[in-house]
Amino acid sequence: MDWEQIYSHAFQWVKEAGEKIRLSFDKTLNIQTKSNPNDLVTNIDKETEQFFISKIRETYPGHKILGEEGFGDKPENLNGIVWLIDPIDGTMNFIHQQRNFAISIGVYENGVGKIGLVYDVVHDELYHAVKGSGAYINDKPIPVLHPRKVNESIIALNATWVMENRRIDHNLLIPLVREARGTRSYGTAALEMVFVAAGRIDAYISMRLSPWDFAGGAVIVEELGGIVTNLRGEKLDFLSNDSLLVARPGLHETILQEYLKCGKW
Amino acid sequence: MDWEQIYSHAFQWVKEAGEKIRLSFDKTLNIQTKSNPNDLVTNIDKETEQFFISKIRETYPGHKILGEEGFGDKPENLNGIVWLIDPIDGTMNFIHQQRNFAISIGVYENGVGKIGLVYDVVHDELYHAVKGSGAYINDKPIPVLHPRKVNESIIALNATWVMENRRIDHNLLIPLVREARGTRSYGTAALEMVFVAAGRIDAYISMRLSPWDFAGGAVIVEELGGIVTNLRGEKLDFLSNDSLLVARPGLHETILQEYLKCGKW
Repeated sequence: MDWEQIYSHAFQWVKEAGEKIRLSFDKTLNIQTKSNPNDLVTNIDKETEQFFISKIRETYPGHKILGEEGFGDKPENLNGIVWLIDPIDGTMNFIHQQRNFAISIGVYENGVGKIGLVYDVVHDELYHAVKGSGAYINDKPIPVLHPRKVNESIIALNATWVMENRRIDHNLLIPLVREARGTRSYGTAALEMVFVAAGRIDAYISMRLSPWDFAGGAVIVEELGGIVTNLRGEKLDFLSNDSLLVARPGLHETILQEYLKCGKW
Repeated sequence: MDWEQIYSHAFQWVKEAGEKIRLSFDKTLNIQTKSNPNDLVTNIDKETEQFFISKIRETYPGHKILGEEGFGDKPENLNGIVWLIDPIDGTMNFIHQQRNFAISIGVYENGVGKIGLVYDVVHDELYHAVKGSGAYINDKPIPVLHPRKVNESIIALNATWVMENRRIDHNLLIPLVREARGTRSYGTAALEMVFVAAGRIDAYISMRLSPWDFAGGAVIVEELGGIVTNLRGEKLDFLSNDSLLVARPGLHETILQEYLKCGKW
């Protein structure tokens, strides 16, 4: 398999899609509401996904595609080569802010992440990695991640997870927020993952994400020695919705053992 | 008083200070820890404040200065013209991320905000307003703010305020977070205020800020019809630390009345 060629295509298509999105800001966004007001979708999400699908089908007819908007395949397993695509991660930011969203692409072979691309379109920052070849922001290599203590760490998580909720006992996360140096919340899983990769935050926690939200970011974070699991410390399967704990090495272990009780909840 | 001239000076000095900060990223930051690890201060904070003070003293010897780093005056009142300066708002972001921080300047006359400047140095976005003359991002006018419902609003607040804390009954804010479209937290009051001004978020809540954190942003938000008070709905006095509720018109009233019980807590 010529991964350099696939990577080069993915890179080029992501940049091209980003350029289309930047141009589209001049047009009025045609916003449709899906099931609830928090789940907005725009024509640009759909067009961007369809752009990737047509490129992939044309160039790599044997590859499978799993995309947020549902125009791809509905793969039942990750055998072979699968592209996991979120055309606009952070749709609410996209609509409300016209920034703080990203295109996320992961290319997996038999369930193993080989290529990750997360493109912060507005700031023209493309985070990218090929497994085993280092990770970059645009053409700048990102340094490997080192451990950091909780009280020196900035942790991204939404306020929802320290309030009573259906997904996790909020009393597990409250001590973590109290003891961390600070917390942030940006509203885009793909960017929050690459912010961990870039060392801008030290950990990111979310309770409900889909495979296309974390497939691209996972390749980039892991390439730098960061750890990506669900909140029980289990590997993600990239076919199911799951919770997400992404962190520097060492810090991931500390959060999992000391705060999340090794997932025994 | 020639406000256009003061504005033009302030504008020029802020841009100049921003340029110095961008250049300083190449040098190693000399980080000192003040009273606790969450209260970091760098040599760049100090140098930037001293830069403003020397410019103001030279050009406007009759003006008073209130700055975060304490090199200015310690005014007991806001009589006359007072510059309120935060050389780097979001110091933790500055150190940890080298982004998501701002220079904030407010110029007040007898306690009334006349000029506000908030400079997102890394993204080269300068938010600015002279009272009565509109507000701008760089040279682009910012539209006036209109009301928006809670369930269509993005609210910036830190996770700390929905956990048990010494400053507010967290049970007041939990329903607001549940009913809002989403929440965010960026870790810089000055930028979070101008994000309200720019319509990227709809409200911003914080429980403990200093006058230099909110003096610049307040002029910009109010110029666009946004409302700036503490969490009891009282006007800020710009001499004391206080809580902060900044929001679109209408939304501010709703949050204050329906969630914060008109400050009766």
